[in-house]
Amino acid sequence: MGDFTHFNEQGKAKMVDVGDKPVSHRTAVAAASVKVNRETFRLIQSGGMKKGDVLTVAQIAGIMGAKKTWELIPMCHPIFLQGIDLNFHLEEKDYSIRIRASVKCDGKTGVEMEALTAVSVAALTVYDMCKAVQKDIEITDIRLLHKSGGVHGAFAREEGQE
Amino acid sequence: MGDFTHFNEQGKAKMVDVGDKPVSHRTAVAAASVKVNRETFRLIQSGGMKKGDVLTVAQIAGIMGAKKTWELIPMCHPIFLQGIDLNFHLEEKDYSIRIRASVKCDGKTGVEMEALTAVSVAALTVYDMCKAVQKDIEITDIRLLHKSGGVHGAFAREEGQE
Amino acid sequence: MGDFTHFNEQGKAKMVDVGDKPVSHRTAVAAASVKVNRETFRLIQSGGMKKGDVLTVAQIAGIMGAKKTWELIPMCHPIFLQGIDLNFHLEEKDYSIRIRASVKCDGKTGVEMEALTAVSVAALTVYDMCKAVQKDIEITDIRLLHKSGGVHGAFAREEGQE
Amino acid sequence: MGDFTHFNEQGKAKMVDVGDKPVSHRTAVAAASVKVNRETFRLIQSGGMKKGDVLTVAQIAGIMGAKKTWELIPMCHPIFLQGIDLNFHLEEKDYSIRIRASVKCDGKTGVEMEALTAVSVAALTVYDMCKAVQKDIEITDIRLLHKSGGVHGAFAREEGQE
Amino acid sequence: MGDFTHFNEQGKAKMVDVGDKPVSHRTAVAAASVKVNRETFRLIQSGGMKKGDVLTVAQIAGIMGAKKTWELIPMCHPIFLQGIDLNFHLEEKDYSIRIRASVKCDGKTGVEMEALTAVSVAALTVYDMCKAVQKDIEITDIRLLHKSGGVHGAFAREEGQE
Amino acid sequence: MGDFTHFNEQGKAKMVDVGDKPVSHRTAVAAASVKVNRETFRLIQSGGMKKGDVLTVAQIAGIMGAKKTWELIPMCHPIFLQGIDLNFHLEEKDYSIRIRASVKCDGKTGVEMEALTAVSVAALTVYDMCKAVQKDIEITDIRLLHKSGGVHGAFAREEGQE
Repeated sequence: MGDFTHFNEQGKAKMVDVGDKPVSHRTAVAAASVKVNRETFRLIQSGGMKKGDVLTVAQIAGIMGAKKTWELIPMCHPIFLQGIDLNFHLEEKDYSIRIRASVKCDGKTGVEMEALTAVSVAALTVYDMCKAVQKDIEITDIRLLHKSGGVHGAFAREEGQE
Repeated sequence: MGDFTHFNEQGKAKMVDVGDKPVSHRTAVAAASVKVNRETFRLIQSGGMKKGDVLTVAQIAGIMGAKKTWELIPMCHPIFLQGIDLNFHLEEKDYSIRIRASVKCDGKTGVEMEALTAVSVAALTVYDMCKAVQKDIEITDIRLLHKSGGVHGAFAREEGQE
Repeated sequence: MGDFTHFNEQGKAKMVDVGDKPVSHRTAVAAASVKVNRETFRLIQSGGMKKGDVLTVAQIAGIMGAKKTWELIPMCHPIFLQGIDLNFHLEEKDYSIRIRASVKCDGKTGVEMEALTAVSVAALTVYDMCKAVQKDIEITDIRLLHKSGGVHGAFAREEGQE
Repeated sequence: MGDFTHFNEQGKAKMVDVGDKPVSHRTAVAAASVKVNRETFRLIQSGGMKKGDVLTVAQIAGIMGAKKTWELIPMCHPIFLQGIDLNFHLEEKDYSIRIRASVKCDGKTGVEMEALTAVSVAALTVYDMCKAVQKDIEITDIRLLHKSGGVHGAFAREEGQE
Repeated sequence: MGDFTHFNEQGKAKMVDVGDKPVSHRTAVAAASVKVNRETFRLIQSGGMKKGDVLTVAQIAGIMGAKKTWELIPMCHPIFLQGIDLNFHLEEKDYSIRIRASVKCDGKTGVEMEALTAVSVAALTVYDMCKAVQKDIEITDIRLLHKSGGVHGAFAREEGQE
Repeated sequence: MGDFTHFNEQGKAKMVDVGDKPVSHRTAVAAASVKVNRETFRLIQSGGMKKGDVLTVAQIAGIMGAKKTWELIPMCHPIFLQGIDLNFHLEEKDYSIRIRASVKCDGKTGVEMEALTAVSVAALTVYDMCKAVQKDIEITDIRLLHKSGGVHGAFAREEGQE
């Protein structure tokens, strides 16, 4: 089993020195779900057409949030993100909004935290836009789906459904 | 059933005018869980003592993240937060880190998004600090537990376990 | 004629002390125009329906930008904005996108800079979204239309057309 | 005619993937004008000497604003700016302050938005510093003058006067 | 002797709840010194006239830095600063630049950290502007000079010279 | 003797163009001291064990502060920091907290300002955490200890004690 890398020899947090790592092309895909009730779900669905598009606001918030990852997560490195894309799927069977973010860069550190931050901020934005109509929304299943690049190579989460 | 409030008459997003709302004392408590495996769980537990304290970094990240809610969530109002506290519970039975954030302010808008952002950023920080030792960590159950203040009064989530 | 207020007795810039000013309800409305060519204008028009909605991105950017006014303009005070709304009008006769922002707060300083920053950031965002299809876009007519509140009272710009 | 590039296949905004673009040396020069009345113009002119230098504050605001472009414009990439310079010309004939910003970087994306943001923030700062003495200031003619680097090559705006 | 207030009952850092504190008028004055050699001192002195004004850049940086105190210092509350002023004195006898910042607000928490951050950022900016001509500059004597407002009343540092 | 480099030919501040500089591996080590009284010193010492760990908060603040250097210091370039580490030494003989920060990057500009900002923000955080128990804390001796990389080569401060 490995060991934490974000601490110095005195057991205090540090931003890991990645100076010796090679630059490689990095990608990461993360996901999150927002669980709402039937009424909220219908409002979000119809909103795209006429009442106001919750998901577009969340899309932009997710992109802008990913760019702020290094400001939010204390030990994250500043990164030159080269591309960020989010998509939203309205899952009828459990009234959930499924969010996915895909992030790319050429760099010395991975971009999984940027993808995870993108879906988290997008999910919080969906929550914010809907909280006036439902108080018990829940954000779940924030996780990494795929990752490529770097010395440790690719990772793909084993999942049934997604 | 209510309707979305964050959109103007053209169906475009706006920051809701709260000018006519009274100032009241607001509190909100939110929670999140980070699900890790047994090995990561043990490392976090022992880290507090000798290897580096993951939870202290997450604590500070959560507090600083709450103050940035208005920057992250597009339609959130800037707020004068008066107090933020987080606590972490290591739940042995499912190897999860349970995070709670409590936020207070006197203002015209609620502070639930600030509490939810605090636990989300804290959870992402736990993820970041542990991702070198485990790739399939999951963040779940981000939700509002309590809320008080404002014209709509108090809310308490009905929950079995927590 | 008045004199600059943003300088101290040594002629150096300062953030003006507004401690003695009364709190009052403040509003400001500002405007800007983005001048594009016929092709870009048509793309923006049709984009709302099927290709991607430039104006929605600009709307959100304008709202988020207004909240950052104090970070951008050196002598601006931090302000608790209470409401921000933008609207966009596609003016067929000169192929311009006319942007208006309305900002509100209860405070000791006016909110004209916040309204002006909102329209400026929204206009820059329209520019950014369209710059791949047209290189000579121009942003013009950034100005204050109305202002109320404060000891100096209301201001309304005399304009022919708008 | 081209098409918007900032949208994904679902017509939703994305941060364009520039991973395949080559790194090249980029420059961009943008301009803006602030139109004031004769009295404000004289105050700005004389202020440089004894009352407080409006343009120096605007100069610094423009430089700092350019560095924040990626935070303000939702689809802009974070960029390692390598140099930013602004200059101001007091144009007697129409009492305008003409602002120019020149921005440089080696990167995969152009820096025109950074140059345009620099002049916009500088112009807003001039407005802010002068708004106590004149209410109907106007910011106009925000535009790109030159651009070099990148696969599309150089651009130079055809202009009579500047 | 008192005890630290920034920790919760588990010994973890928190942002102190100031909800029960009364709003009062707060002021704080802080100071810092930048020690340079004779050559750098002369350059700064003459620069004001013809070569570029180091102190004006530092002045603006100090004001903007004070507004960011809550972002930099983890347990600081967001504050509505009402006024910030800095002044610089070139002390011939030890070739030091003496910086003072005065900060005001009406609020529930003091503004000493804002005044201390203002002088620190101003001092770092002087350092940055001069580091090409001198490598061993030193910033010293960052301290609070006065403070008023709040339940604990006024504080004034006993000092000989300043 | 050299000359200031941060000004353009009109004597106005600019962000220096580093486009022609070679990329090299850069390191910088900076230091600061926080002078407290015996009681505060003992509280900080014991706090690490049971009452709340001031230095851990300062450690994280220093790391996060270093990443914001380009936002705080007007003429600093945005930098991709590759590693940041801080350590704290409690110096019994003069009751001071000695802070050191080491920063690394591969780039066209040095990282001394990032190291100096790291120790400054860490020192301000120690001050903030202790100000409830002591009013006359002082931050001193902010200075560069070592620097390597870049065309001007290495620098090491000559010091007796440290």
